[in-house]
Amino acid sequence: MNAGELQYALGMAGTVAFAVTAVLAVTPRGIDLFGACVMGLITAIGGGTIRDVILEVPVFWASDLNYIWVALFASLVAFPANRIMSRTAIHDLMLYVDALGVAMFAIQAAHKVMNLDFGMPLAPILLGVITAIGGGLLRDVLAGNTTLLMRKELYAIPVTIGCTLDVVLVGLLPEHSVAIGFGCALMIFGLRAAAIHWNLHVPTWMTTQSRAS
Amino acid sequence: MNAGELQYALGMAGTVAFAVTAVLAVTPRGIDLFGACVMGLITAIGGGTIRDVILEVPVFWASDLNYIWVALFASLVAFPANRIMSRTAIHDLMLYVDALGVAMFAIQAAHKVMNLDFGMPLAPILLGVITAIGGGLLRDVLAGNTTLLMRKELYAIPVTIGCTLDVVLVGLLPEHSVAIGFGCALMIFGLRAAAIHWNLHVPTWMTTQSRAS
Amino acid sequence: MNAGELQYALGMAGTVAFAVTAVLAVTPRGIDLFGACVMGLITAIGGGTIRDVILEVPVFWASDLNYIWVALFASLVAFPANRIMSRTAIHDLMLYVDALGVAMFAIQAAHKVMNLDFGMPLAPILLGVITAIGGGLLRDVLAGNTTLLMRKELYAIPVTIGCTLDVVLVGLLPEHSVAIGFGCALMIFGLRAAAIHWNLHVPTWMTTQSRAS
Repeated sequence: MNAGELQYALGMAGTVAFAVTAVLAVTPRGIDLFGACVMGLITAIGGGTIRDVILEVPVFWASDLNYIWVALFASLVAFPANRIMSRTAIHDLMLYVDALGVAMFAIQAAHKVMNLDFGMPLAPILLGVITAIGGGLLRDVLAGNTTLLMRKELYAIPVTIGCTLDVVLVGLLPEHSVAIGFGCALMIFGLRAAAIHWNLHVPTWMTTQSRAS
Repeated sequence: MNAGELQYALGMAGTVAFAVTAVLAVTPRGIDLFGACVMGLITAIGGGTIRDVILEVPVFWASDLNYIWVALFASLVAFPANRIMSRTAIHDLMLYVDALGVAMFAIQAAHKVMNLDFGMPLAPILLGVITAIGGGLLRDVLAGNTTLLMRKELYAIPVTIGCTLDVVLVGLLPEHSVAIGFGCALMIFGLRAAAIHWNLHVPTWMTTQSRAS
Repeated sequence: MNAGELQYALGMAGTVAFAVTAVLAVTPRGIDLFGACVMGLITAIGGGTIRDVILEVPVFWASDLNYIWVALFASLVAFPANRIMSRTAIHDLMLYVDALGVAMFAIQAAHKVMNLDFGMPLAPILLGVITAIGGGLLRDVLAGNTTLLMRKELYAIPVTIGCTLDVVLVGLLPEHSVAIGFGCALMIFGLRAAAIHWNLHVPTWMTTQSRAS
C-alpha cells in the first residue's frame, strides 16, 4: 500500500465515520431510515461539495461515486445499530475515526486549494476548515441541533491550527509537501483525540456566557 | 399542446404550488409580505438552483425569468389569501399540485443530469431528490420550522423510488426515455397523492422515537 | 480619493460593520472566540459568495484577500470588546455602518450582474438582495437565531426598493450608471437609517400574526 492508497483508504474510513456519527447524532431526535441516510450522506460529502463549488471545479464525488456508496451503506448499517453504537465503546471508537476523517479531509482540501494556487495563503486554510466542518454544520442545521460553532467543543480549532501550520510549512518547504501534510493531519488528529479523551473545551476566557434572552 | 409544452405548463403549475405551499407554511409563524415572497421564491427555485450550481451549468431561471415572475406573483396572491387557503379545500388542492410539482421537478432534474452524463448512475437520483426537496429544506431552515427530513412524512421517499426506477429503466431502454419519465413522474405523484389522501407516514419500524434531551 | 477608491473604502467599512454586528449578534448566546470569528467572516463574505457561485464567476475574495483579513481582524477586536460595544453608542454607530454596508454591497452586486447581462432585469435585483442579506441569513441559521425574514424589521425591503430603482434607472439612462448607483445606495442607506432611528417596522396590514402552534 503506497501513500496514495493509504490516503484513499483513510478518506473512505473518514467517510464512514462522518456518516455514522451523523446518524448517531440525529437518531435521538426521532428520524426515519430515509432521513438518516440523507443526513449521513450530507455530512459525509457536504463540506467537500461546498469547497468544490467555491473553487469552481467539478464536485469530487461526480467522478468517484464510492464516496456516496460508502456513505449510504454506512448510514444504512448505523441506523438499526444506533442503540448498540450509541451505548458502547463503538461510539467512542467512531469519535476517534471521525477525528481521523476531519484531519484527513482538512489537509486534503488545503493541498487541493494550494495546488490550484487559489486565494493564497488564506483560502487553503479557510476551505480546509469548511471541508472538515461544513458537512456537520449542514447536518446540525437540517436536524435543528445547535451547530458546533456554538458548542465550545474543541473541534474546529485544531483543524484551523493544523491547516495554518500546513500552509506555512508547505510555503517554506514545498518539496516536502506530502510529509508536511501527513504530519499536520496527524497533529490535528492528536489534538482532537486529546480533546475527546480528556473532554477538553475552549478555555473560559475565550468564551462568552449565554444570557437569557 | 405537445409533450414539451405540457411539460412546461406542468413545471409552471409546480412553481405556483411550491410558492403557495411555502407561503401557507410560514404565515402561521408571523411574517411580512416581503418575507413571504422571499420564502415563496426560495422554495420554488431553491432546489433547482442547488442542482445547477453542483452541475456547474447556468442556473435555469437566468435564461427564463418566468419561473421567478410566476413564483413572485403566486406568493403575492397567496399572502393575503392565506386565511381562505389554509382553511378550505384549496389547501388540499395545493398539496396535490405540490405533489405534481415535486414529481415533475424530480424527473426533469434526473433527465437533465443523465443528459449531461454526470456521476452516473447515482447523481441523477441524488440531484433529482435535491431538486424536489431542496427548496422546501431551505424554506424550513430559514423559517425555523422542523425540516421535512425530521418529519416522517412520506415526501422524499416516493421521489427517491421514482428517480431510481427512472434511472434504471432509462439505462435499459434509452429510446423510451420520454415515456419512462412521464411514467415515473406519474408514479411519484400517485404515491405522494396516496400519502396525502390516507395521511400515510413512514412505518414505525423504519423510524426512531425522539427522546427528551 | 476618486470614486473607485471611495467605493473600495466604503466596501471595507461595510465589511467591518458586517463582521462586528455579527459578533455582537451571537455573543449573547454564548460562543467562543473561534466561533465568533467564523460568524463574522461568514456574515461579511457569505452573501457575495452565494452571488458569485450563482453567477459562475470566481468568488470576489479569492483575488482580494483584504475582505477576509479585515473581517477576521474586526471580529477579533469586537469579541473581547462586545460588552462595551453592545452597551454604548458604539452599537448604534455600528448599526448605521451596517446600513452603509448593506447599501454598498447591494448596489455593487446589482451593477456586477447588469455588467454580466445576467438574467435581466430581475436577477440584478434578486442577487443584490441576496448579496446584502445572505451573509446575515447564514449567520442567523448557524447561530440558531430567528432569521431576519421572520423579524418584520425594515431591512430587506429598503434594499429591494433601492435595487429595483437602480435597475430601472440604469436601463433608462445607462450613461449615468455610476451616479445612479451612488444615488440608489444613498437612498437605501437613508431608508435603513430612518428605520433604525425611528425604530420603524413593516406596517401591520402587511404582516400576519404568529399563532401558537
